[in-house]
Amino acid sequence: MNKQQNILIIGAGLCGSLLALRLGQRGYNVTIMEMRPDLRKVTISAGRSINLALSDRGIKAMKLVGLEEKVKPLCIPMNGRMLHDLEGNTVLAPYSGRTHEFINSVSRGQLNGLLLDEAEKHENVSIHFNKKCKSVDFENTTALFMDCDTNKEFVEDADVIFATDGAGSALRQSYYLEKKFLFSFSQEYLSHGYKELSILPAENGAYKTYKNALHIWGREAFMLIALPNLDGSFTVTLFLSYDEGEYNFNNLTTKERVLEFFGKYFKDALELMPNLVEDFFENPTSPLGTVKCSPWHYKGNTLLMGDAAHAIVPFYGQGMNASFEDVTEFDNILDKGYADWETVFKAYEKSRKKDTDAIADLAIDNFHEMKGHVNHANFREKRTLEMAFEKEFPNDYSSKYSLVTFNEDINYREAMLKGRAQDKAILNMLADGEVSTSLDLKDKEVLKPILEKVKKATEAILEDDRIAGLYS
Amino acid sequence: MNKQQNILIIGAGLCGSLLALRLGQRGYNVTIMEMRPDLRKVTISAGRSINLALSDRGIKAMKLVGLEEKVKPLCIPMNGRMLHDLEGNTVLAPYSGRTHEFINSVSRGQLNGLLLDEAEKHENVSIHFNKKCKSVDFENTTALFMDCDTNKEFVEDADVIFATDGAGSALRQSYYLEKKFLFSFSQEYLSHGYKELSILPAENGAYKTYKNALHIWGREAFMLIALPNLDGSFTVTLFLSYDEGEYNFNNLTTKERVLEFFGKYFKDALELMPNLVEDFFENPTSPLGTVKCSPWHYKGNTLLMGDAAHAIVPFYGQGMNASFEDVTEFDNILDKGYADWETVFKAYEKSRKKDTDAIADLAIDNFHEMKGHVNHANFREKRTLEMAFEKEFPNDYSSKYSLVTFNEDINYREAMLKGRAQDKAILNMLADGEVSTSLDLKDKEVLKPILEKVKKATEAILEDDRIAGLYS
Repeated sequence: MNKQQNILIIGAGLCGSLLALRLGQRGYNVTIMEMRPDLRKVTISAGRSINLALSDRGIKAMKLVGLEEKVKPLCIPMNGRMLHDLEGNTVLAPYSGRTHEFINSVSRGQLNGLLLDEAEKHENVSIHFNKKCKSVDFENTTALFMDCDTNKEFVEDADVIFATDGAGSALRQSYYLEKKFLFSFSQEYLSHGYKELSILPAENGAYKTYKNALHIWGREAFMLIALPNLDGSFTVTLFLSYDEGEYNFNNLTTKERVLEFFGKYFKDALELMPNLVEDFFENPTSPLGTVKCSPWHYKGNTLLMGDAAHAIVPFYGQGMNASFEDVTEFDNILDKGYADWETVFKAYEKSRKKDTDAIADLAIDNFHEMKGHVNHANFREKRTLEMAFEKEFPNDYSSKYSLVTFNEDINYREAMLKGRAQDKAILNMLADGEVSTSLDLKDKEVLKPILEKVKKATEAILEDDRIAGLYS
Repeated sequence: MNKQQNILIIGAGLCGSLLALRLGQRGYNVTIMEMRPDLRKVTISAGRSINLALSDRGIKAMKLVGLEEKVKPLCIPMNGRMLHDLEGNTVLAPYSGRTHEFINSVSRGQLNGLLLDEAEKHENVSIHFNKKCKSVDFENTTALFMDCDTNKEFVEDADVIFATDGAGSALRQSYYLEKKFLFSFSQEYLSHGYKELSILPAENGAYKTYKNALHIWGREAFMLIALPNLDGSFTVTLFLSYDEGEYNFNNLTTKERVLEFFGKYFKDALELMPNLVEDFFENPTSPLGTVKCSPWHYKGNTLLMGDAAHAIVPFYGQGMNASFEDVTEFDNILDKGYADWETVFKAYEKSRKKDTDAIADLAIDNFHEMKGHVNHANFREKRTLEMAFEKEFPNDYSSKYSLVTFNEDINYREAMLKGRAQDKAILNMLADGEVSTSLDLKDKEVLKPILEKVKKATEAILEDDRIAGLYS
């Protein structure tokens, strides 16, 4: 396709800036319009996902654009989940039995800034801030913007428009409201919302709790998590129902009640958070939504990517990774050399949508897993067994978590189907007493036949489902 | 609750008129506003679901309002599916092994007319036609209407508003657009659309093909069905992709191509349809969409019911039955004597939504079953076995179809879970050669152990899923 074409990207967030960089590297003329100010010049507003988990799928995209080495210094490895019980006891549950497999806590602002810096190095890429998209005329491939400095509206014409404008995408709203084609669309909210809080660094700048883990206080009906930042602080997130249960966002309205709630359920965290009350009442409570839709593209004119196409809840730590993988996958499709954008968009959606649907569903699974299952005996036994498999037979087994997080060459849908079947196999074998973690799991001779049994049961589950037509 | 309250119902379709009748019987002051003219006085427009399947859940609602005997004369029993192959050979596949279990073809217009007649007999019920709802102010419990005769807008105030205004509900759209609360919403379109056609009566008024069946010409990628009408005609529906395959709605643009398509795939039907081409080009092509949403109610002010809350595709013949069952279920909740509408609405949604979600998913399952599976050897063997179970052990077995259609006291979700598990059990036992239809299935001694095996396998499947947490 003609590289002299003008490509308009709406939104310079993580996905938009990576896409701009990659299309810039490929030689296209790229203009990005971003509604917010340049995050490299102003302080990012507190309270909305300050840090994120970067894992292998995201890192693969960083490699694609040659940024792996520049991203590393921004990362804090997290080797596992640090589980905090009601009494403040902790246990580290590793993410994988293979020690080289871990996830990373990374600052959204720093990573986004790096991508913008790199994109701007290309003279065929230009970035404009404070330009808010109001709607997209997808028939005529133009977009209506408001300049937030002057409050004046203007229309931007392009040969092709990519909307990477997040969960509240203006292009997606135009698809829905215009009713010019059959647009399948869903937005699903969890009963829970979230609020960001913080554990500040100690006076000497040190981390107040263990640095290299994702901390979880899972309390069945709600949970608290914490991810480390480079400055010694942790960003803490409370996930809580809006209106159910004794304590919920709607009834935590006084300082006393907030302190009572944290004192009762997150005592050890509260001790690290003298700033809790200020954070709690200053920071917004935000909803947890999943967005799916189809088609993503209108002819060869417009395409939704990233959260605009598939917003997911944060519980698998895959939101950013999935959006980055969108760019990797789109780049693969471009490599096929199709003659026109419509063919490219169609091929991209066909290959990609099944996977973003899968990670959306997996993320909701993990909400329940993190809140409660991590504390259940059968779940912990399953993890013990899986850690042993991964440690002793590193080339023969990957848990669902590992398939999703550390196996960037297996797509999300395949990871979901295989991972769920494995979970079902192991949980049932444990329930039926067919396997036990009381054996010596460090003895390969003991472990090997158990692994073989799990693999066989997993295959049988997948085969039974296939025969029943469950994957049609 | 105070019966002097003014209840406004938006939409006098099947659900709205039944709801009005029932609330009228209970003594409420009810006003219905309907956007269309009175269907008892004008001819219903051709081409949009002229007849429908009425089965046990719908009949239960008719019993509730005392109309069972008045509905019967409007019904044509359909005992099974008449399957037509490419050569025009037919085989009748019964819906159940119990001969008293059948579904009914009923005219939408006649049934709706009866419900309106009965509702109007109550002096506390008033019905107004040609009043189109534009939006609902759910905070203030008022609705904006346009009088289609005068083109004037007016606002209707009420104590409580029920929206039974179908898949394109104005209240649901107000919930979505106003963003005053977190509204989970999905609209999903199949790749296929539908078009209504007809087989007219013979010159002597007789039915041109077998009367007491639902005729199916399943062709994998598309299908044709026909349901009988009281006047000797059949309403025929073509389900076909908009844009995929050699023949699709987008490319069937000439008389010649339509005749070629029908001649090739529906030869025996074509012979009964000299009027095909006129019908084809006069009647609209309509989309097949599923709508789910939540919450259905806003406080105690407004409630979505029927298609407005849960539009489903027509492949289980349960659309009308589900909407009627909404009224039965709502009536049950009213019997509990809660003190306010908000509690009633909350209890109703909590009890009902899981079931309307289930029938929505079942209806999509059946799309694939009707198009293709009915022709597959393993599917037919499964049905053969199930018919034998139902015939020889009528109190011991019900197929998924029977659970959904003839067991009005089992809710849709339970029917789905059990029905799917049974299907999976039987299909796998057939695939593994554990059961066979070559045995003498009329011999109870032969059949009994097979049934026991199926039941055991079904229980094991449900138990395995429970352990894996799949129903959480």
